[in-house]
Amino acid sequence: MSNPAFKSWAQNAARLVAVASGREPADLVIRGGRVVNVHSREVLDGWQVAVADGRFAYVGPDAGHCVGDGTQVIEAEGRYLIPGLCDAHMHIESGMLTPAEFAAAVIPHGTTSMFTDPHEIANVLGLRGVKLMHDEALMQPVNIFTQMPSCAPSAPGLETTGHEITPEDVAEAMAWPGIVGLGEMMNFPGVAAGDPKMLAEIGATQEAGKTVGGHYAAPDLGAPFHAYAAGGPADDHEGTSEADAIARVRQGMRAMLRLGSAWYDVEKQITAVTDKGLDPRNFILCTDDCHSGTLVNDGHMNRVVRHAIACGCDPLVALQMATINTATHFGLERELGSIAPGRRADVILTSDLATLPIEHVIARGQTVAEGGQIRVDCPHLDWPNDVRTTVKLGKQLAAADFEIPAPDGAKRVTAKVIGVVENQAPTEALTADLAVTAGRVEAQGAVAQIALVERHRGTGGVTNGFVSGFGYGPGMAIASTVAHDSHHMIVVGTDRAMMAAAANRLGEVGGGVTVWKDGAELALVELPIAGLMSDRPAAEVAARADAMVAAMGQCGCTLNNAYMQHSLLALVVIPALRISDLGLVDVTKFELTDLIEPNT
Amino acid sequence: MSNPAFKSWAQNAARLVAVASGREPADLVIRGGRVVNVHSREVLDGWQVAVADGRFAYVGPDAGHCVGDGTQVIEAEGRYLIPGLCDAHMHIESGMLTPAEFAAAVIPHGTTSMFTDPHEIANVLGLRGVKLMHDEALMQPVNIFTQMPSCAPSAPGLETTGHEITPEDVAEAMAWPGIVGLGEMMNFPGVAAGDPKMLAEIGATQEAGKTVGGHYAAPDLGAPFHAYAAGGPADDHEGTSEADAIARVRQGMRAMLRLGSAWYDVEKQITAVTDKGLDPRNFILCTDDCHSGTLVNDGHMNRVVRHAIACGCDPLVALQMATINTATHFGLERELGSIAPGRRADVILTSDLATLPIEHVIARGQTVAEGGQIRVDCPHLDWPNDVRTTVKLGKQLAAADFEIPAPDGAKRVTAKVIGVVENQAPTEALTADLAVTAGRVEAQGAVAQIALVERHRGTGGVTNGFVSGFGYGPGMAIASTVAHDSHHMIVVGTDRAMMAAAANRLGEVGGGVTVWKDGAELALVELPIAGLMSDRPAAEVAARADAMVAAMGQCGCTLNNAYMQHSLLALVVIPALRISDLGLVDVTKFELTDLIEPNT
Repeated sequence: MSNPAFKSWAQNAARLVAVASGREPADLVIRGGRVVNVHSREVLDGWQVAVADGRFAYVGPDAGHCVGDGTQVIEAEGRYLIPGLCDAHMHIESGMLTPAEFAAAVIPHGTTSMFTDPHEIANVLGLRGVKLMHDEALMQPVNIFTQMPSCAPSAPGLETTGHEITPEDVAEAMAWPGIVGLGEMMNFPGVAAGDPKMLAEIGATQEAGKTVGGHYAAPDLGAPFHAYAAGGPADDHEGTSEADAIARVRQGMRAMLRLGSAWYDVEKQITAVTDKGLDPRNFILCTDDCHSGTLVNDGHMNRVVRHAIACGCDPLVALQMATINTATHFGLERELGSIAPGRRADVILTSDLATLPIEHVIARGQTVAEGGQIRVDCPHLDWPNDVRTTVKLGKQLAAADFEIPAPDGAKRVTAKVIGVVENQAPTEALTADLAVTAGRVEAQGAVAQIALVERHRGTGGVTNGFVSGFGYGPGMAIASTVAHDSHHMIVVGTDRAMMAAAANRLGEVGGGVTVWKDGAELALVELPIAGLMSDRPAAEVAARADAMVAAMGQCGCTLNNAYMQHSLLALVVIPALRISDLGLVDVTKFELTDLIEPNT
Repeated sequence: MSNPAFKSWAQNAARLVAVASGREPADLVIRGGRVVNVHSREVLDGWQVAVADGRFAYVGPDAGHCVGDGTQVIEAEGRYLIPGLCDAHMHIESGMLTPAEFAAAVIPHGTTSMFTDPHEIANVLGLRGVKLMHDEALMQPVNIFTQMPSCAPSAPGLETTGHEITPEDVAEAMAWPGIVGLGEMMNFPGVAAGDPKMLAEIGATQEAGKTVGGHYAAPDLGAPFHAYAAGGPADDHEGTSEADAIARVRQGMRAMLRLGSAWYDVEKQITAVTDKGLDPRNFILCTDDCHSGTLVNDGHMNRVVRHAIACGCDPLVALQMATINTATHFGLERELGSIAPGRRADVILTSDLATLPIEHVIARGQTVAEGGQIRVDCPHLDWPNDVRTTVKLGKQLAAADFEIPAPDGAKRVTAKVIGVVENQAPTEALTADLAVTAGRVEAQGAVAQIALVERHRGTGGVTNGFVSGFGYGPGMAIASTVAHDSHHMIVVGTDRAMMAAAANRLGEVGGGVTVWKDGAELALVELPIAGLMSDRPAAEVAARADAMVAAMGQCGCTLNNAYMQHSLLALVVIPALRISDLGLVDVTKFELTDLIEPNT
């Protein structure tokens, strides 16, 4: 369960013992600081650490006997030494970055361990995509563990993904060196109903001695919740209230409290510890989803820990929630997450435990960032060519592909419309009375067209529908191959020619997001890897994403965070109305539905 | 890592989910009680539990939907439901009982999980003996996990054990279903010195993802202690002071606080939590060694938890130290140690959390004891015949075998004498001026003879020496095949004919302890299994042991707990002077030494 190139404690034990006893010099000694001990929950003034072969060899009051001629000595000058931070649940793809570039973006923020679920690429490329993410993860100078995605497709029968994940895939992946468990089991109704496929995936993970990630997104804490807990998930990051957090911990699950770019679930839940006084050991901090802009401007796990402290959590307890609690949850408490002998020497120097400036980051004994600047190479996988050419449209799309025929002879129709709601994931199921011109239904006013363009198999399939709420004016289109969870292509527009141009453009560049208006491209975010990720640096991707959001505004969009709404329009597991390659989906009933009301 | 006959959570998940959601009836529901939740550290008034196939299916406010026609319902009548108690480190052999009889003795005290190190039988029978213990352990209705013994012999070169344990043995055993880790790594000087054999055993355990037991018995918390921690042991039960406990936890080890029949190490160490306020999660309670008398008269882990509470520990924290902390340490937190879905349904009903009366014990959903009475069968292994015939003397011993020749022509000699100290494991290295009669050195006054009789290979070897401090009068002998750690036979006596009679008697019955005086046997404890254990009930063995201690008193012994002193006289890893089959051992120098001072 580790990078095969990084030797285990057992492989290094002889050297570690020799250094700790003073028979051999350490590679690195840090002295003059204050060590935060997350085992005892103490600050140990003046303690020193000695590192050998990337692991802590000695942690104690005086490492003088470990210093030799070749030993690098870092003077902490009164600063705190805290363990490198762990993100317990996250999706790298949400940053629109490859694992290498994601790592390069978060290392300066002090994140040295990540537990990642490459769920998005699994929908595009199946087990092979997961393996590629896993492989690039293991090449990094920090610890990136992979949770095997559990739910692709998320809603069998309602969409066609690029690839599916089977219980056999899960069992196979459990033997890979970087696999730490099963990714969030989102099919909670399936688990509660005893779905054999879901229970088989959970079982394969448990039998491998690994951790089953949970995702229980309903407010009902009654029988369905208890049935889900009985099925085996060991954590959950979908809680949003104090009661949610308490309920999960009482079931023997760990409550993961989430602060992502758009998730704000720490403040409401952490009161279970700060006010109700529950044992904090089963509470863990995570991000789930962070955009590149957040990584560039605000931080990563350091942002979450600061926030938890600002919510009233004791700094040492908050640090435990981002270090040893996480490591223990994944069975890695003897491998990372603390400053103790034998563990990976992942340590941060910071001059304040509350504001948590990340001044110096060391991973596996090596300086990886200083003063917010990365100081290490994050190697790129040689991604295979076909992974950069996953956008298969099968043809050049034309305006006619986005025409919506009216029933014979109809002059006006009542059509279903997906209603976008600002700052919310659920949509509304609306209807609109629309005019028919030359046998085609025409969007008008607040209503725009939406299309789901099949892009995994080049079928040329286009599902058309209507959407409202973005505020777009005439003559525009926006297309994206980030289209949760099946990641076909979502095109929204008020001009069918622009919709075709935007879709063809993404076919040409291999995926991403493009915004068009009046015959010209206003913005493009290229995401060539699986149509989901860029292998350019985070700052560059963040700048392009900013430009894309600005272009949406130029097209008349008035919503906050409208790209998030856009990319979720095909997410057929969140109510009420969504679009998939199979048609319009009524997610309140989990069934396909007609676009045009039959009585019109 | 479990009884193959008891199905895993994964194997039972479909039924557990069905019961939790109310689609199938539970086997058992307990209602009307107060559930102690060791995850959240709360008492949940009125919570109910439902059990199916030996595991908790539902734990929540109302299990009414889990009750069907065939469901057994237990009314808790306001009592507390606490998880079954776990003993984190113990040696079954110390009870002089087989695993089955040990289990039968401790189940009524609420112990439902034991982490056992069959170190004694390993010295007699090697890996095969460990396997037999492991196999009988897995037959029991409670959870008995095995730690693979690490140090047989404990002091290579200073004694000859019946069998040795090799790194290859350790690697092989890691694949057995009941093996949970490596037994206490007693060779702490070896680890600190980088002994490749010790590091190989630790490494094989770590690479198997299991837990390395520690044993650091020195007061030095400097470099040797840090070197030991760097070697990999994950816990230690040898601490005796608050500073010891704190030091271990700060190194990322778990401090196991011990209350055995003769160990009183909880009170001094638990102040690390109660006074110093360290995070309690890394503190664990255990017994290490309990005599059958303690089990019959005083209890087992319930005694330890009560004691911890009496020392000022919060009852819920003390219960965590004997349940979830232990389970987490061994990677079993999702298998046992709490009342939560999916876990083994091991639960105790008690009407008071401080005095902890054990009123009803349920293990794997089955009532195993009520009101202190065992209610279940604890099956016996069909122990092979040769395991009952391990006492091989090679000949009938005679008084002459115990004669100690003087140097030619000497009238008096100065001889080394092992000085027994009441209530302490270490001995003193004394000398005595002794008379020579007919060429033989004669014990006199407070000095008795001691002999180590080889009993594993029938060599007929006898090592003779002197011991003082027991207070024995003339004409007596006591022999024991419990003779830590190599378990040859220790004979102490003031009459050589009696010594021969006692030794021969143990050869005849296959081992145990026998006390002789003036030509008659005063007491006999038969321990036919490996010369260490009886397969008779604990009460019977305890009565025989009481009679044996009384007989020692009849022989003039004035020491408290003198049998313990007797059985440790060959323990060549604790200073200062011991006896082995190779000779007299100076344990301050770890070398053999002469019995007769050379200048005499």
